[in-house]
Amino acid sequence: MEISALQRERYKYQPKLPAILSQSIEDVALSFGKPTKSIADSDALAELFKLSYGKPIASIVKGKNEKINQPLIVGVILSGGQAPGGHNVIAGIYDGLKKGNKSSVLLGFLGGPGGMLEDRAVEITDTIIDEYRNTGGFDIIGSGRTKIETPEQFAAALTTAKKRNLDAVVVIGGDDSNTNAALLAEYFTAQNLKTRVIGCPKTIDGDLKNEYIEASFGFDTAAKTYSELIGNIERDAASARKYWHFIKLMGRSASHITLECGLQTRPNVCLISEEVEAKNISMVQIVEQICSSIVKRAANKDNFGVVLIPEGLIEFVPEMKKLIEELNDIMADHGDELTEKTGFADQISWLNSRLSGESNTLFTALPPEIARQLLADRDPHGNVQVSRIDTEKLLIGMVEEKLKELKKTGMYNGKFSALAHFFGYEGRSAFPSNFDADYCYSLGFTAFVLIASGLTGYISSVRNLTAPADKWTPGGIPLTMMMNMERRHGSAKPVIKKALVELEGKPFKALAENREKWAENTCYRFPGAIQYYGPSDVCDQPTKTLILEHS
Amino acid sequence: MEISALQRERYKYQPKLPAILSQSIEDVALSFGKPTKSIADSDALAELFKLSYGKPIASIVKGKNEKINQPLIVGVILSGGQAPGGHNVIAGIYDGLKKGNKSSVLLGFLGGPGGMLEDRAVEITDTIIDEYRNTGGFDIIGSGRTKIETPEQFAAALTTAKKRNLDAVVVIGGDDSNTNAALLAEYFTAQNLKTRVIGCPKTIDGDLKNEYIEASFGFDTAAKTYSELIGNIERDAASARKYWHFIKLMGRSASHITLECGLQTRPNVCLISEEVEAKNISMVQIVEQICSSIVKRAANKDNFGVVLIPEGLIEFVPEMKKLIEELNDIMADHGDELTEKTGFADQISWLNSRLSGESNTLFTALPPEIARQLLADRDPHGNVQVSRIDTEKLLIGMVEEKLKELKKTGMYNGKFSALAHFFGYEGRSAFPSNFDADYCYSLGFTAFVLIASGLTGYISSVRNLTAPADKWTPGGIPLTMMMNMERRHGSAKPVIKKALVELEGKPFKALAENREKWAENTCYRFPGAIQYYGPSDVCDQPTKTLILEHS
Repeated sequence: MEISALQRERYKYQPKLPAILSQSIEDVALSFGKPTKSIADSDALAELFKLSYGKPIASIVKGKNEKINQPLIVGVILSGGQAPGGHNVIAGIYDGLKKGNKSSVLLGFLGGPGGMLEDRAVEITDTIIDEYRNTGGFDIIGSGRTKIETPEQFAAALTTAKKRNLDAVVVIGGDDSNTNAALLAEYFTAQNLKTRVIGCPKTIDGDLKNEYIEASFGFDTAAKTYSELIGNIERDAASARKYWHFIKLMGRSASHITLECGLQTRPNVCLISEEVEAKNISMVQIVEQICSSIVKRAANKDNFGVVLIPEGLIEFVPEMKKLIEELNDIMADHGDELTEKTGFADQISWLNSRLSGESNTLFTALPPEIARQLLADRDPHGNVQVSRIDTEKLLIGMVEEKLKELKKTGMYNGKFSALAHFFGYEGRSAFPSNFDADYCYSLGFTAFVLIASGLTGYISSVRNLTAPADKWTPGGIPLTMMMNMERRHGSAKPVIKKALVELEGKPFKALAENREKWAENTCYRFPGAIQYYGPSDVCDQPTKTLILEHS
Repeated sequence: MEISALQRERYKYQPKLPAILSQSIEDVALSFGKPTKSIADSDALAELFKLSYGKPIASIVKGKNEKINQPLIVGVILSGGQAPGGHNVIAGIYDGLKKGNKSSVLLGFLGGPGGMLEDRAVEITDTIIDEYRNTGGFDIIGSGRTKIETPEQFAAALTTAKKRNLDAVVVIGGDDSNTNAALLAEYFTAQNLKTRVIGCPKTIDGDLKNEYIEASFGFDTAAKTYSELIGNIERDAASARKYWHFIKLMGRSASHITLECGLQTRPNVCLISEEVEAKNISMVQIVEQICSSIVKRAANKDNFGVVLIPEGLIEFVPEMKKLIEELNDIMADHGDELTEKTGFADQISWLNSRLSGESNTLFTALPPEIARQLLADRDPHGNVQVSRIDTEKLLIGMVEEKLKELKKTGMYNGKFSALAHFFGYEGRSAFPSNFDADYCYSLGFTAFVLIASGLTGYISSVRNLTAPADKWTPGGIPLTMMMNMERRHGSAKPVIKKALVELEGKPFKALAENREKWAENTCYRFPGAIQYYGPSDVCDQPTKTLILEHS
């Protein structure tokens, strides 16, 4: 494989660590706080996690730690979608282990949690890890979406842990994967197995976040990559002066990515799913908001603009949610009848009598391509595949219709030509920014310290992230502390609570305060490509979200 | 407007100049070669360009130049689509002018050539130019696609030139705009007007290129921006191991961008329009080529990959070209009849009897969405809008069908899930790479020297581009030298010949030599984001195309 110049140079980058982790490893110890509680449902969770509930927060401090030099066998798993920095987490664990004891072993389970269940693993060596330092992707060992949930799966994990004589396993994943890690920790303890389980907070979506986990890794790099592209498109729009760009951004549940990109690039419209849901905003109102910007800008002869749309938007729009639910129900019961209708017109009239009045009105008002997507793209259970719906094109179609109306009334006299984009895969495997490279390496190194100190059921935590890296504070947070009970598939399950965009939070308020100005005027900001070298203000800044949350 | 950290830092960047242009301006002179000839049709061109045909190549050399300190009034025009570095061309002209004489004036015509026709202009000042140094976009004065072609337009340009007392006008544009510049130079000379006309080679497509113009500006930055994204997607594909990404890249006539991105990122399939045309490759053969890679990789359990597709591909596929021509003819004559058919099925059967057998077979074999695009997206003359056709989705649809066949025969047993991307607007207005920042500034400064030396009908030329910038050789090339006669709208016109990808050229050969290996194996290369700082191999390298062409 030919290596790019950047990759070759990035191999040489030494990620920064919190000062406490840079000193002699024998002086790295833990101190513990008071017992903790879950964020809610403490009784139910204490019952489910009999052996691991309520542990204290662990802080890494200077002190004697005799256990730190013991030889260890540790497994590591990459779980779920790619996020920049995953390789550095593994490098951090590896370097920590080897610093503790040269004979320690790190096993990488291949292809995600499934690799542990089927005992497919590779021993990480210097040669392997050196090829992946400071690079993007999860290709060092691959990832997967298998969950360790069923009794059979727990048993299979146990078999592997015993066979491999594992002292610990590190699960690098999002909220679901870390919930799984908590369950696995409890299970292993109950089985009197020595194997500890430690989690690491990964997800570009940024929704694994709380008072103790200031950021999930990968969010920084992904948001910066999308912001580069949005800024470039804004500059192009302001130069060509003839296109409205509708840009959908990855992130189905939470809109953190869209919000961060909005703060970075100052587009004319930046939709936030959490606001749509909280304020019960309809499709018609969303379209009116966009059109209001278009009309004002057209009056200034600015027939161009940029609209940011979170991927999951329509799932948060009340009437779309209802329509989708009705379609799912109809198709579950009568899907075959619909499939038999050959023409689209026939399908529409067949649905006519089955949808509620409101949903029927909405459905027939949708642009035909979108209505077709709703009917055509169904999963094996007949459900509409919401992620497949081109929300950006749906909005363009509805905006075009609305502008026609406004033109007739004389309220709008501009030109509207729109282009659609979707950015997601472009940012998930980018070379990690210096921030993510340092943060991930520190998370990995911290995970090693937690393991060497004998902890289980913790997530690796590195805090004070807006300060320079040497001032970061590493430690461990009990996974149960971040959990509550939620209904999933009809029954109450322990889950780590997803962090959605808070409408009272400073990042959203920074958007809300400015958006009227941005809607009418051209206030674009052009972040440019991620820089790994150069002045510190260019190559070491964290996200605006993080800075605002800490301000 | 809030400025990003990168933008603030880029303001400080001092673009590099050829050594000869860094010295005292009084020592910058010109030397001339022998009279030149056009690349073809010399008699016709000598007749059309009576006053400007056959001028000698001008080289910038050390020597006395008394004229260089005269005060000048110069206009500048940005013509056509954005390309990174346009602002630096203007900065180069401006700094040169002011270095020659502080009272010289640079006028920016607003919104492209139309700004000159309507005399809309702004005087460039330190305050203005300093806001745009080393930034992307054309927003300093805007661009436009108006051409100066008709007698009325020439007269309007003359009126403005006289009214503004212009010593010269610089046209920053692609092949068509520089052809216009040549005609304008001839016309002004014929009218005894002192206004000189100088061109500058701009286009991200890379098709304004020849022995004397080694690269058009913007190509470097745009190709690097797309390569960043393709590399990121490749790394994601190799990590997730479940998607085939079909990536369409901007560039309708020439495939230089796709070829450069292919060399940078080593995808599994990289289609080149020029090869498709030269070898008369059919859609079926293209689909077979892609499927061959998919089948081989599936046998290795690699059910993922990346395919690069030049935007203009289908215009080069013989049978698609024929179908499009037939559809255009039918719609020109019977468009209304078709529009009256409400159902798609009706439209198909109506077309059935009107298309030739071959075109009808092809049309009915197209995925329905694509067939609909062919019928729905027509320009005001009824013509199919080829640029609107989602070639990447067309290929995905046809590949899916072919794989179903192969599965039935037992020749293929993989999984195929595809995602479509189109990159264009993301790269046209990026912050120029150091190469483009330096090259554009040098082109602008060179344009000033040509103007100050009294030349007209020349294009600014900076050569030896694979050497460090101080070794670059600046000069002027007579525009007529790059021209031939081509049929346009039924009559012979003088035009600058577009540089298409040469199948005998080293860049294409480098692709051709490797593609069989890349088709089957995962040889991806991850260039990462454009770097403006850091080690020189990371931030100062020109394109692979340029390096190979010079090797």
